[in-house]
Amino acid sequence: MKNILLKIAYDGSGFHGWQRQPDQRTVQGTLEEALEHIIGAPITLEGTSRTDAGVHALGQCATMRGDFGIPAARIPIAANNILQDIAILSAEEKPEGFHARFGAVGKTYVYRFAVAPRGDIFLRNYACLLAKAPNIGKMSEAAKHIEGTHDFASFQAAGGAERETTVRTIFDVRIKEGAGTDPAGGVYETVIAEVAGDGFLYNMVRIIAGTLLEAGYERIAPKETAGIIAAKSRALAGPTMPPQGLYLKEVYFDDDALTAYRNMHSEPHETLNRCTSTMTR
Amino acid sequence: MKNILLKIAYDGSGFHGWQRQPDQRTVQGTLEEALEHIIGAPITLEGTSRTDAGVHALGQCATMRGDFGIPAARIPIAANNILQDIAILSAEEKPEGFHARFGAVGKTYVYRFAVAPRGDIFLRNYACLLAKAPNIGKMSEAAKHIEGTHDFASFQAAGGAERETTVRTIFDVRIKEGAGTDPAGGVYETVIAEVAGDGFLYNMVRIIAGTLLEAGYERIAPKETAGIIAAKSRALAGPTMPPQGLYLKEVYFDDDALTAYRNMHSEPHETLNRCTSTMTR
Repeated sequence: MKNILLKIAYDGSGFHGWQRQPDQRTVQGTLEEALEHIIGAPITLEGTSRTDAGVHALGQCATMRGDFGIPAARIPIAANNILQDIAILSAEEKPEGFHARFGAVGKTYVYRFAVAPRGDIFLRNYACLLAKAPNIGKMSEAAKHIEGTHDFASFQAAGGAERETTVRTIFDVRIKEGAGTDPAGGVYETVIAEVAGDGFLYNMVRIIAGTLLEAGYERIAPKETAGIIAAKSRALAGPTMPPQGLYLKEVYFDDDALTAYRNMHSEPHETLNRCTSTMTR
Repeated sequence: MKNILLKIAYDGSGFHGWQRQPDQRTVQGTLEEALEHIIGAPITLEGTSRTDAGVHALGQCATMRGDFGIPAARIPIAANNILQDIAILSAEEKPEGFHARFGAVGKTYVYRFAVAPRGDIFLRNYACLLAKAPNIGKMSEAAKHIEGTHDFASFQAAGGAERETTVRTIFDVRIKEGAGTDPAGGVYETVIAEVAGDGFLYNMVRIIAGTLLEAGYERIAPKETAGIIAAKSRALAGPTMPPQGLYLKEVYFDDDALTAYRNMHSEPHETLNRCTSTMTR
């Protein structure tokens, strides 16, 4: 019995989310169908994260188990020939006990804002569009309060799976300013919130993004973020930002990878903010 | 009877082209439906260019005629509230004799190449993806031969409308190097061919782009372009590039606008290539 880990990117705009649903085009359903076509046997994927409709992935993970004749390394090439808005980035054999969902020890999400006209036809599916630029300094200040181990009950939407606890550890929240181009070459300003943590509650990143934006628009003082966490009340946090700005960027499976990530990100924020801008302006 | 000129942008990836067709989602059909909803009477649009499936527009034009109560300036706001992947950029009353199709005296198209992996999920609908960067100098050299008044029979695909003549005047072909970001923030190199002319044969810009790319990849010498034109044979020109790289950028309606355009573009190419890159690298 093989256990193969797939790393997957997708453009979420054409899907009703990750999880297979009858009569809906989903990432899991589309992928399982493509893999079944290649392998010639039914495939059931287990994904790390059940991303919502419209949410994108740069590094979703999923495992598939079975007695596959095909070498793991052949799977991406064969599948990507069939797939359109999904790409399998890698496929790697893992020990039988490896588990894409319960084995994940951390994840990084990116939330992407673009300063662009409402309804911009080329960006509407790929970012949350803002009429004016937020104050990045205030957003970074607020972000510092999110980091650490807290009870994030204030940052959980109703409707998710039952959780034993709402305590999570956020390793790092980083605000990056940059510039992007739309596909037609138009230039726009971007603000990105990159959030790494050991786990996330339902809609947690989108609510964090909404709260940071409140600070960026100076509707709340950055330090109020601490009080919002302490209150454990969804009503106090900012609005849930729309799904199209959210990207699942990376999944971490063992403490080594996680330690490497944390060391890499241990420089002072101010320096990194400048170095990691997506583009020189 | 009012005659209103609309300037329109659209993301062509969700449409079977401009022209209304039964049981197909088209730009004309979608727009007419939205306008009918706003105005409360059937609308027939006359567009300047019947763009193919997958082709985008930054400045398509179309006229609508009728006894509309709504002021022209209200139309974009009302329509853009309903529309998703189409935006009405402006609406302007014109004299009764004004004609969006036969009144156009020139058009600019942009053909967009991106140096990015085949099948890149975030770019696949918005550019022609190239595995390696072409030689820009060679493309610019070849482009010079396209400019002027020529019989462009070599650059016409079968299947278009009957034309009285295949002679067209190309005012300007400009190759621009730049950088873009995909919606997820990934940086890539772009090569853009901007082509302005008094009219275009079926698939003409896509065949020009394919021929310039042949020069860019040094499969033909730039000066062979003159011979390809002279031969009046489709077989000698380069391949028809895919629709998703093509953008209808602008339509010109009177000689004043055209003269302004030509003056604006009369600087030496080399200078402009540097100045008009879509982004500092």
